[in-house]
Amino acid sequence: MITTELRTDPITGRMVAIDIGPFKRRDDFELEPVRLEDPPAQCPLCEGREADAGNEILAWREGGPANVPGWSVRVVPNRHPMLRIEGQMHVRGEGLLESRDGLGAHEVIVETPIHDQPLHTLDVDRLWRVLWAWRTRIQDLKRDSRFASVVIFKNHGRAAGARLDHAHSHLAAFPLITPALADKLRGAARHLTKSGKCIFCDLIAQELHDGRRIIRDQDALLAIAPYASRAPFETWIVPRDHAPRFEDATDATLLALAAAIKEVMARIDWALERPACNVVLHTGPLNGEGDRAFHWHVEIIPRVTRVSGLEWGCGVHRNPVSPEEAASVLRC
Amino acid sequence: MITTELRTDPITGRMVAIDIGPFKRRDDFELEPVRLEDPPAQCPLCEGREADAGNEILAWREGGPANVPGWSVRVVPNRHPMLRIEGQMHVRGEGLLESRDGLGAHEVIVETPIHDQPLHTLDVDRLWRVLWAWRTRIQDLKRDSRFASVVIFKNHGRAAGARLDHAHSHLAAFPLITPALADKLRGAARHLTKSGKCIFCDLIAQELHDGRRIIRDQDALLAIAPYASRAPFETWIVPRDHAPRFEDATDATLLALAAAIKEVMARIDWALERPACNVVLHTGPLNGEGDRAFHWHVEIIPRVTRVSGLEWGCGVHRNPVSPEEAASVLRC
Repeated sequence: MITTELRTDPITGRMVAIDIGPFKRRDDFELEPVRLEDPPAQCPLCEGREADAGNEILAWREGGPANVPGWSVRVVPNRHPMLRIEGQMHVRGEGLLESRDGLGAHEVIVETPIHDQPLHTLDVDRLWRVLWAWRTRIQDLKRDSRFASVVIFKNHGRAAGARLDHAHSHLAAFPLITPALADKLRGAARHLTKSGKCIFCDLIAQELHDGRRIIRDQDALLAIAPYASRAPFETWIVPRDHAPRFEDATDATLLALAAAIKEVMARIDWALERPACNVVLHTGPLNGEGDRAFHWHVEIIPRVTRVSGLEWGCGVHRNPVSPEEAASVLRC
Repeated sequence: MITTELRTDPITGRMVAIDIGPFKRRDDFELEPVRLEDPPAQCPLCEGREADAGNEILAWREGGPANVPGWSVRVVPNRHPMLRIEGQMHVRGEGLLESRDGLGAHEVIVETPIHDQPLHTLDVDRLWRVLWAWRTRIQDLKRDSRFASVVIFKNHGRAAGARLDHAHSHLAAFPLITPALADKLRGAARHLTKSGKCIFCDLIAQELHDGRRIIRDQDALLAIAPYASRAPFETWIVPRDHAPRFEDATDATLLALAAAIKEVMARIDWALERPACNVVLHTGPLNGEGDRAFHWHVEIIPRVTRVSGLEWGCGVHRNPVSPEEAASVLRC
């Protein structure tokens, strides 16, 4: 019989409902395997149509001028940005209601010049260049003191919110700490006050000792199925040693991360038949506020269940696969 | 040009990114109009297959025995419950990790005996009976002192998470305050401390004075497009006068709510071509904790955009339709 456990996320304190029982393979999932839909001839992100994607902010090129073919990774402004570099910092208030300009940066990292090449099918050196672009852009944007936090996220497949098939990720720099980061920092600060230690460091030690949720343990990085996974096969990749900010990661760490993303996503593809996924990079506030309490980490979230009234109404995710089962399937 | 505003939800303090500009009709939406997929012959919720749905907990019947045809609304246990009546209250801890049994109640309200009859197509008197069942079940469950909060939610259409076509809603009684309710109560308590007043009462006064986000103002209920709407055409129906808990609503209020739900959802059907929707009833904690600071309310959330890495990674919803535009389209 399947029973449900209400688990508490050790970082944020959020509740998740997890079904405990044998892994129910696929029947329960609303699978929408990732397929190509855009005709390559109209794709604005393909090599040869650089003008359609916009002026490049950064590119990995073996010499040559900007905005022409010959790149392997390219960063351009988002054509429908949520956040713009022009705007006012101040909050406009009217009684109980407050708003501010969508000030910030919203960029697109084009991960490959080739139309049909998902991120995790790139070889490790090519994948490394994508992570190099992530790091370089954060290093650059943090010099603008108006920005408080940066998130990089990726929508792989329509069911994960992608609007273009061509592999790309989004960078968003916000004028304040995002709600998701604020939730994590609050929990991390609470733990730091109580124990004097980083909650990620403590959690990693406990997970390594337990072992049931470890997916991969190589180099300086650990891949785990988080105890309060919100989605089936959710995976976090996190540095073993204390490391609050992604922009300070070394080339060697980026190479290890490239290998970990590639391997974990290949396992997820195999287990769930090429599911749509979101990939999110969480890194500490740009001003160094979380430096003692926080680890940067990458979350990989397969999108094989629908968000329902339960999530909207209760703020609770129901996950039909326990992280212990998921780890046993994904373990490399 | 479309610009984006970062708005703060006045109750929870959460940030939403809202595109300000003319209403972009449909082109932007990932519409998946609600269609029937289940063959009626196999539907466990249809009249005549009462045994398949389970023993009824409550039903509206014109006399006659239980668990046979002749009902117009029927409440049964969920066949795959997230929460069960048997279980322990205590929290199990292991280092940083905590869990508890999925103790609670998870019931299904079958809203009509007829297979193809969405809630909002019922006449007002029939719709009233569904709300009567919601109220009656909450009144009953609150006598169990182990339960702290109750949420009723509805998944209308596959894109909103429905697994059966036949119209039904879910009731979930939790052993603690849900995260979504906790967020609302925290903001409401902050406002009460600061101003001595209920934030919903103050917000309603401000919205009535402003007028731009009012969708419907009839009887004792107000339908508004919330200032920090997370989804296009999100609508809240809220009592004008202070009313913390749904289970105390009068028959007349339920009748007014039935009319409001019916009318608003018909307008949404017209504007967005029968979109999938979630409907959520938020009501105060069962122990009366939020009685001075909170209003019960119903949220209607059309599901015409995909949840992407932005929501997962930043905790920010991006809404391509401003509530002012939505209200001007939906206004009755």
